Amino acid sequence: MEKNKVGEFHFVTEPYLLDFRGRVTIPMIGNYLIHVASTHAAERGFGFNDMSERHTAWVLSRLAIEMIEYPAMSEPITLYTWIDEVGRLFTSRCFELADSNGKTFGYARSIWAAIDVETRRPTLLDVAGLSSYITERSCPIEKPGKIAAAESESEGIPYSIKYSDLDINGHLNSIKYMEHLLDLFDLEMFKTKDIKRFEIAYQAEGKYGMELMLHKQEAGSEKYNMAICNEGKAICRAAVTWS
Amino acid sequence: MEKNKVGEFHFVTEPYLLDFRGRVTIPMIGNYLIHVASTHAAERGFGFNDMSERHTAWVLSRLAIEMIEYPAMSEPITLYTWIDEVGRLFTSRCFELADSNGKTFGYARSIWAAIDVETRRPTLLDVAGLSSYITERSCPIEKPGKIAAAESESEGIPYSIKYSDLDINGHLNSIKYMEHLLDLFDLEMFKTKDIKRFEIAYQAEGKYGMELMLHKQEAGSEKYNMAICNEGKAICRAAVTWS
Repeated sequence: MEKNKVGEFHFVTEPYLLDFRGRVTIPMIGNYLIHVASTHAAERGFGFNDMSERHTAWVLSRLAIEMIEYPAMSEPITLYTWIDEVGRLFTSRCFELADSNGKTFGYARSIWAAIDVETRRPTLLDVAGLSSYITERSCPIEKPGKIAAAESESEGIPYSIKYSDLDINGHLNSIKYMEHLLDLFDLEMFKTKDIKRFEIAYQAEGKYGMELMLHKQEAGSEKYNMAICNEGKAICRAAVTWS
Repeated sequence: MEKNKVGEFHFVTEPYLLDFRGRVTIPMIGNYLIHVASTHAAERGFGFNDMSERHTAWVLSRLAIEMIEYPAMSEPITLYTWIDEVGRLFTSRCFELADSNGKTFGYARSIWAAIDVETRRPTLLDVAGLSSYITERSCPIEKPGKIAAAESESEGIPYSIKYSDLDINGHLNSIKYMEHLLDLFDLEMFKTKDIKRFEIAYQAEGKYGMELMLHKQEAGSEKYNMAICNEGKAICRAAVTWS
């Protein structure tokens, strides 16, 4: 019974998808998480197609990833995912990442909402249906929380949304927000440090041609707040802790 | 015997990786091709790790993809790959893409070189070893050929290479060249037409921070030549035919 609640998925990191250090990137982890969330949901009757039939779609609202260490190249990765909480408008899904020896090297927490595909407004979740999959498995990382504004004191780098940034809903792909934000860090940072925690809150949908400003602001020792703004309003906020 | 020469791989397109029309993108097809090339090679003793041991690495030199049609969403894809020709410095690998009914919807041809990872210069291939995998299977599309310069009459869009563009060798990822080039087309083009043939020739390695100019020039009815230049010199050329 518990087994059916927790999804278990296997990946092998591909050399050609790793970064210049031969590391899995945070956006790539994000891709894996969305993949397993999507498959786990589909296998339980509330996947992309099930949602589409009801003219709804899942929208990722918040995501926090904590890495204990980064797997070596071409190492098999096991990913576990399960539902943690279900509310009227949001559901919380957790993840655990383990290496081939079964050693946990990371955790993640995500918050999802369902929207009506026509109005793009939140819709009520099937609380009873989803709740039957809730499990008590522990996910010992902080929940994604409030992130301070980063746009007030930093100048920002302009970026306009392109074809390759769009997802199937015609909006800026969740993973592309991450990519564009992490690209604000100098390569030196990636050479000498590791991202320990990455957290992102999606606030509005990015559309084709939208003129964005990408912001990064130091918020303490090895901690940065970030934001993507359109016309002065944040469409997403993120926080990165290096170590 | 022939079976061992031709690699067969299965994919299911992921909704969250499709473009705004729910289509597999050309860069995504490129990713699949590189994945199967890489796996097919590794299974025969000349993969990434085998090459690394000899301080060499495969470098994609040219790629041509022809799409007969685009698979529908979440449809299983079968990808076949085989070695076509082996020379002293280059080897040619072909691909065939089929849908779940076994109907072919695309072909691709690629040319690869091996470089010394220290000098970044081409090295001689193991002609005898590779040749034992050559098969006569047909790949009925034109070989990748010479692409006319696109930078002379077009103004160009500036782009500088970022962290997320880098591959494990610290150079601009082969797929990212494609992404940045295709982003030069207006969304209207993707709404009303399909890419029938995409061809790319990699001429030099892009490095972090390198200031590039992205060029696109109409070269006939629904045909465009493209180039990525650094300091006036093309680091890659591409040609796109729409239909």
